[in-house]
Amino acid sequence: MLQSPRTLTYVEEAFRLIQEKPNVRDIVILNDLGHPVKSTMSNSASVEFAGLVQTLRGRIDRGMQKIDPTDELLMLRIRTKFHEILVTPDAKITVIVVQSADDKFENELF
Amino acid sequence: MLQSPRTLTYVEEAFRLIQEKPNVRDIVILNDLGHPVKSTMSNSASVEFAGLVQTLRGRIDRGMQKIDPTDELLMLRIRTKFHEILVTPDAKITVIVVQSADDKFENELF
Repeated sequence: MLQSPRTLTYVEEAFRLIQEKPNVRDIVILNDLGHPVKSTMSNSASVEFAGLVQTLRGRIDRGMQKIDPTDELLMLRIRTKFHEILVTPDAKITVIVVQSADDKFENELF
Repeated sequence: MLQSPRTLTYVEEAFRLIQEKPNVRDIVILNDLGHPVKSTMSNSASVEFAGLVQTLRGRIDRGMQKIDPTDELLMLRIRTKFHEILVTPDAKITVIVVQSADDKFENELF
C-alpha cells in the first residue's frame, strides 16, 4: 500500500481527526526537520515542546542503533499524573498529542 | 496506605511477578541512584540500558519542571517494531521491562 505523501492536506486531516478525539488537550505536528508546522499551542510553546520531543527521539534512536539497528520507533507514550503525551513518527511527520489523563493510573506491571 | 519500603525482598518479589507475565524478555530494576540492582541482562548491558533510561527520565523531568512542576512521571512506554519498553518509577526504585511486541501495532491516533 503506497503511503499517502505527508502533504499539508494530510497534516490538516490528521489534525482534524485527532481533535475530535476525547480528552485531547493539545496537538503539535512536526515536519521532517522537527519544526512545528501545525499546533494548538503558541509558537514559542510549540518550538519548546518540539525540542523536548526531538531530544528524546534522538536519544532513543541512538540507543536503538546500539541494541538493534533494524528496529524502529513506532510510538512513545509519556504518562504523568495529569497528562499522557503520545509521540508518533509517521513517515516524514511526527504527531504529538497531549491528552488529559483523568483515569486512575493502574500500574500494569505488578 | 503506607507504601511498603522498597527493600530487597520487595525488589525480588516485583521481579518474580513480572517474570511470570507473558512476552517479558528482560527486566532491569534500578535503585534510587539509577544503578541496576537486579537484572536479566549482563552487567554491562544493564548499566548501558540504565544509562539510556536515566537520560530519558532526566530530560522528561526537566521538561515537566517547566511545563507543570506539580506533575510527575508515572510511566514511559517506548514502542518499537519489535519491542515495547516500559519504564515505571516506583518510589525509590525504577522498574524497566522489555517485552517482545508480536501484536500488530495499531496507530491509535488516526
